[in-house]
Amino acid sequence: MNDILESLERTIRERRKAEPDTSYVASLRAKGRAKMAEKLGEEAVEAVIAAVQDDKAAMTGEAADLLFHLMVLLADMDLSLEDVTGELARREGLSGLEEKAARGAS
Amino acid sequence: MNDILESLERTIRERRKAEPDTSYVASLRAKGRAKMAEKLGEEAVEAVIAAVQDDKAAMTGEAADLLFHLMVLLADMDLSLEDVTGELARREGLSGLEEKAARGAS
Amino acid sequence: MNDILESLERTIRERRKAEPDTSYVASLRAKGRAKMAEKLGEEAVEAVIAAVQDDKAAMTGEAADLLFHLMVLLADMDLSLEDVTGELARREGLSGLEEKAARGAS
Amino acid sequence: MNDILESLERTIRERRKAEPDTSYVASLRAKGRAKMAEKLGEEAVEAVIAAVQDDKAAMTGEAADLLFHLMVLLADMDLSLEDVTGELARREGLSGLEEKAARGAS
Repeated sequence: MNDILESLERTIRERRKAEPDTSYVASLRAKGRAKMAEKLGEEAVEAVIAAVQDDKAAMTGEAADLLFHLMVLLADMDLSLEDVTGELARREGLSGLEEKAARGAS
Repeated sequence: MNDILESLERTIRERRKAEPDTSYVASLRAKGRAKMAEKLGEEAVEAVIAAVQDDKAAMTGEAADLLFHLMVLLADMDLSLEDVTGELARREGLSGLEEKAARGAS
Repeated sequence: MNDILESLERTIRERRKAEPDTSYVASLRAKGRAKMAEKLGEEAVEAVIAAVQDDKAAMTGEAADLLFHLMVLLADMDLSLEDVTGELARREGLSGLEEKAARGAS
Repeated sequence: MNDILESLERTIRERRKAEPDTSYVASLRAKGRAKMAEKLGEEAVEAVIAAVQDDKAAMTGEAADLLFHLMVLLADMDLSLEDVTGELARREGLSGLEEKAARGAS
């Protein structure tokens, strides 16, 4: 799992430099941050629907789309999935409802 | 990164069996699938806003929230992050706009 | 304003019966409830982005898209905008934070 | 329907000037644009779920919440529902798929 995510993250960073008409990642980059954020929101809506419909195959695909577009957005902000897992690790050890309190209003 | 995600996934599966008033994960499980999906959608909206505002600290936190609630939802559907990375690996190797075509209408 | 919304609602109900390849509303109906809900979610994400970017022209267009797709979805559930304004009227008179309490957890 | 929406819009504009601890609208205003946008996004997610679950009572309530928070956001941007219905009227007359094309990429 680790290898796949790290490999995908490298691929995304490389494709960002490609010509927009040859790479989906580069085309998103050319459209700008707001378009990448919009894609993340759309994939989340699709994942919500797949979950409520209890469609496992659709959920797997939508979760993959969501994770992919999250990584595209993180790369555009010069953040990595490791920054995110680092934040998750910081919260780890915290348990139950205390953990929710630590996450604040979210 | 791998260790953190696998450890968090194990923790989520364990907490699901806890009493709802002692664990955030168990409280979400008690509220049902739709509530978990709603949380995923809310965290995605917050991530969209952090991205558009170019707030790296907020984005790190919201991406962590998003990933956490995605894992909670996957666990409720008896899916794992490995199913999702497996799907991403299947698409890997595909490049640029062909990859988008492979993802179809999403 | 009233006339426009009532006229649009009538138009949407009529177009639902058209051939999917001649009408956008009929094409959405043919794709089913989940696709209509997905469109509502997407337009909301675009409105969120326009609001955070403080783009009044974009917000006007996205709010129109959002309202349009809300009416499409309501029609598919055999609900009307009048059902929704009736609910708003029921809450009217309630003021300030009491009103929020009346709306419950939402 | 017209009266209700116009009355609600007036009420929202008045409540914006109230003390944040005495009015929900004023409390949202005090939290800022991003928080209002976040609420719009959350209500849209809840409407999406109610639609997919085919829950008419829930949909009526969520659509009311969505419309209410859209009006709060419009007021914060110095826009009105009339600006939005004006945009819808501009598109009216356009029919079927041409109308979608007129709305562009959205």
